[in-house]
Amino acid sequence: MTRTDIARRVYNHAWKLDPIVRSLLDTDFYKLLMLQMIWGMYPKVDATFSLINRATSVRLAEEIDEQELRAQLDHARTLRFTKKEMIWLGGNTFYGRKQIFEPEFLAWLEDFQLPEYELHKRDGQFELEFHGPWMYTTMWEIPALAIINELRSRAAMKSFGPFALDVLYARAKAKMWAKTERLKKLPGIRISDFGTRRRHSFLWQRWCVEALKEGIGEAFTGTSNVKLAMDTDLEALGTNAHELPMVLAALADSEKELRQAPYKVLQDWQRYYGGNLLIVLPDAFGTAAFLRDAPDWVADWTGFRPDSAPPIEGGERIIEWWREKGKDPRSKLLIFSDGLEVDTIIETYKHFEGKVRMSFGWGTNLTNDFEDCAPQETDGLKAISLVCKVTEANGRPAVKLADNPAKATGDPREIKRYLRIFGEKDRVEQLVKV
Amino acid sequence: MTRTDIARRVYNHAWKLDPIVRSLLDTDFYKLLMLQMIWGMYPKVDATFSLINRATSVRLAEEIDEQELRAQLDHARTLRFTKKEMIWLGGNTFYGRKQIFEPEFLAWLEDFQLPEYELHKRDGQFELEFHGPWMYTTMWEIPALAIINELRSRAAMKSFGPFALDVLYARAKAKMWAKTERLKKLPGIRISDFGTRRRHSFLWQRWCVEALKEGIGEAFTGTSNVKLAMDTDLEALGTNAHELPMVLAALADSEKELRQAPYKVLQDWQRYYGGNLLIVLPDAFGTAAFLRDAPDWVADWTGFRPDSAPPIEGGERIIEWWREKGKDPRSKLLIFSDGLEVDTIIETYKHFEGKVRMSFGWGTNLTNDFEDCAPQETDGLKAISLVCKVTEANGRPAVKLADNPAKATGDPREIKRYLRIFGEKDRVEQLVKV
Repeated sequence: MTRTDIARRVYNHAWKLDPIVRSLLDTDFYKLLMLQMIWGMYPKVDATFSLINRATSVRLAEEIDEQELRAQLDHARTLRFTKKEMIWLGGNTFYGRKQIFEPEFLAWLEDFQLPEYELHKRDGQFELEFHGPWMYTTMWEIPALAIINELRSRAAMKSFGPFALDVLYARAKAKMWAKTERLKKLPGIRISDFGTRRRHSFLWQRWCVEALKEGIGEAFTGTSNVKLAMDTDLEALGTNAHELPMVLAALADSEKELRQAPYKVLQDWQRYYGGNLLIVLPDAFGTAAFLRDAPDWVADWTGFRPDSAPPIEGGERIIEWWREKGKDPRSKLLIFSDGLEVDTIIETYKHFEGKVRMSFGWGTNLTNDFEDCAPQETDGLKAISLVCKVTEANGRPAVKLADNPAKATGDPREIKRYLRIFGEKDRVEQLVKV
Repeated sequence: MTRTDIARRVYNHAWKLDPIVRSLLDTDFYKLLMLQMIWGMYPKVDATFSLINRATSVRLAEEIDEQELRAQLDHARTLRFTKKEMIWLGGNTFYGRKQIFEPEFLAWLEDFQLPEYELHKRDGQFELEFHGPWMYTTMWEIPALAIINELRSRAAMKSFGPFALDVLYARAKAKMWAKTERLKKLPGIRISDFGTRRRHSFLWQRWCVEALKEGIGEAFTGTSNVKLAMDTDLEALGTNAHELPMVLAALADSEKELRQAPYKVLQDWQRYYGGNLLIVLPDAFGTAAFLRDAPDWVADWTGFRPDSAPPIEGGERIIEWWREKGKDPRSKLLIFSDGLEVDTIIETYKHFEGKVRMSFGWGTNLTNDFEDCAPQETDGLKAISLVCKVTEANGRPAVKLADNPAKATGDPREIKRYLRIFGEKDRVEQLVKV
């Protein structure tokens, strides 16, 4: 006999909204680490974050209903950190350190709410912007991206019957499991989930995290998603992002100050965090310029996260620099996180094994790989290169150069000015898939 | 918030038994067709059915708990045809014919109960036998096999955690769907589910049937499983099996009568059924002998089901014979049903396309193919060649020769005697995988 729980069925079908983001912890851990520093040192800075769809051929505003998007963004604005979440943030050990968040910061966080948004449609795209104090707008990056990406998946699957959905997820699971089987053969590899922003959906990200936990065991070092870390007792991972040097560079009043911005960020960071959190993200204005002008103390930091150079060349350049500074790379850490797929991970792992400590922050290809999974044709399940970047700080344009010109963001004239100051050495154009 | 239906959870966990066979209709349709004839013409004949495990290296009684087996067999004995099932049997159209079952037969069926069983363990195997009137014992074949096969799957999966099970079924679904994608490319192909006896489980068979329905549409002509046919509004398919000539041969009082037994069966059958139900199963004592001695009227029957010869050679021999009898093979039907896999189906289809009508009764490889699906090693999910055959009729040994000596059953001395009478022409030893 089939037993239908009538109450549950009515409840399920009476939903006004199936929320995509249900917790303010459903974000990347580095946002909270950065937030504490921004709150502490730059509370008066305004920063605008803007959605940027690098996949211009994908007309997002035609795939996603504007009202649905507004409903999800509005719902996210109703969220507050819950009591349990606050207790966990205060009581948990992050990167081996207790009380990484100051009591005053946590007290402020208790009342945190995502600020307003501005949404327009133009030429088949959404113009989505967040204006206001940096310490509020910064927190939109991850939920905004997760919402748009999941709405896009939902739109693509709207015409799928229950059977097509069943086959879709069965194939995606089979595919994901095959990846874990390849990865677990690599002794000592360290992999973490960095896939929140680009995920197919929250539930799918959770499945993938569980798959990694089950499939590669100890080699799975944690997730950047704070909520998943809390719910599944994993390590919450992540350090800092480009927005820090981008804002500080935008605020610079002279060329000299601009050149110093990337190192000023590190000094600020070191006031708050130590040990394994001392990870340099060197590519905001080109890794070559960063290394060329870096003070010696930068070589004392635990590691680097090359994020837009080809992993092997990029990693080798950093190793070379460590050697010049008299450091043994085997005591240093490289965190790879740019467009990783299993093949890239394996190739990079084999190349650097024994030469340096390394770790892989696996994003889009982990949490949003549905290639060849749909039993009916659709382009809507192909992940796209969608970012939410700081574009202005205190009214001044913010710029990212990156090691890959295709990943640069900002006003073209400003980009030119930055390139003149930082140089173009070692920049390599690569196709940005995700 | 996770909502747990407490009542359902308690109910689920308080099960004494998760029954494998829950309906007397969960059997092959041909059993009911044969049953009506046995009931009508051979009500006094006793027939013993015995479990035969051709995969002797698989020690069934060590994999499956005897008490669990008894509990399942006992549960099957509690079943009766329900009112709804009786109405459906009486009111449905089978093979385009209404009221295929006589009212008197249906009245008798209403009280039908599976008879007692005899179960012993010997040398790591189960000796499972059903003694009594043929019109009762015949009905054990399918439920007994389905029960043992599903108990074996369950035993193999006992050590699997929820994640391993999830991956197992995801892979099996992905695999099954890939099969439908290959098959749907063949225009005009006709495929049906013959996989009840060897299925991994009832629920998995149902999924596979749904997958075929969704995946190949019109090319999926139905299922041999009566319950699934009823539940999903598919055609119930199947005609007759080896037990008919085997019993009639065992009852033969002379060599002449023995030679005539295979044709006597067809004459009996024709009294009950016509049209597309006139399918000859020619291999009980070798197809060569059958064709050599067949009266001309056999060529008027709709088709043949070659079941143990290699499909292309076997089919060609029958086509050749039709031509000799002056029949146009293009108006005739070949039903292939022996150990089919997608490759065999495609190869056979391509070979015979345009030469003869054909149909594929897909069994074990449809409903029990978990090769390379389990995330942890197990042999217990590999389907084995397990059959439940008539071994005695009125105390006399029953024999099957088949076109493949590996599929012969019965007392070795009797097999020798039959071989002397029917000959050994065209018998080809092939590995019996399932």
